[in-house]
Amino acid sequence: MSVEFINPFINATINVLKTMADMDPTPLKPRLKNITQSFGDVTSIIGLAGRRTKGSFAVSFSEACIVRIVSRMLGDEVTEGSEEIQDAVGEITNMISGGARAELEKKGYSLEMAIPTIVSGRGHSIKHITNFPIIVVPFRTEAGPFFVEACLKEEGSLS
Amino acid sequence: MSVEFINPFINATINVLKTMADMDPTPLKPRLKNITQSFGDVTSIIGLAGRRTKGSFAVSFSEACIVRIVSRMLGDEVTEGSEEIQDAVGEITNMISGGARAELEKKGYSLEMAIPTIVSGRGHSIKHITNFPIIVVPFRTEAGPFFVEACLKEEGSLS
Repeated sequence: MSVEFINPFINATINVLKTMADMDPTPLKPRLKNITQSFGDVTSIIGLAGRRTKGSFAVSFSEACIVRIVSRMLGDEVTEGSEEIQDAVGEITNMISGGARAELEKKGYSLEMAIPTIVSGRGHSIKHITNFPIIVVPFRTEAGPFFVEACLKEEGSLS
Repeated sequence: MSVEFINPFINATINVLKTMADMDPTPLKPRLKNITQSFGDVTSIIGLAGRRTKGSFAVSFSEACIVRIVSRMLGDEVTEGSEEIQDAVGEITNMISGGARAELEKKGYSLEMAIPTIVSGRGHSIKHITNFPIIVVPFRTEAGPFFVEACLKEEGSLS
């Protein structure tokens, strides 16, 4: 599988943040993630699984960045660490992965989405356990950066 | 769906830790998770997804507990925060969810496994975004407690 599988996730991220929070995040150059890195304070993770293709998608925000995004989504200032933030991040994740899934389906990859899980805690790191390429895309926003990362593997190909 | 879906995860956890680390973890009473709670320092999350059923499974360890488990698995003392620990936790997660998946399949639930993601960071909390019941099972071990949690939803059922 080519690393181009990341493009549907980039497109969906831009669309969802534009629609939900009227924001225009700028994707920077995708890169391979080959070491564990600390990415953020609030991370959402969702599994993707089909009969032949498996994957994981995560989006990771600093506290300041997600507070701004969710405040714009809800039209009201939210506070750090609130449940509103976790629920909104879950919704954002479902929408991004749903959009990416639809685009991947057109390319012939059949995947179902699992249930998103939100991790909260200052400066945690995340690592996907796979030998397939993990692609990280930093996004720039007016409220600071956030990171999208995804990996997909196809069974039957070399791992 | 009855909350009995948790039993295959409990059984698989006991089997995997017995086989891999010669440990006999004792499951305590399963409980509903209805607030976000801080569970651990190292958490592994894996999505499960089929056409009708979706879910998420997580296992969360204190640093002391996972250091002991992985040291026993590898027959060698491992150090806190090492990559060996993350890889071993990924392997444990794949084995537990694989075992649970096989048992759930016998009960008529068809699920594929996504790729596990490991989160590391002192005292992080996790929250699954679903209105379906999330079941948490604390386990007691000689090296301290760990927690297994899972949720499954069936499409077509309420919420």
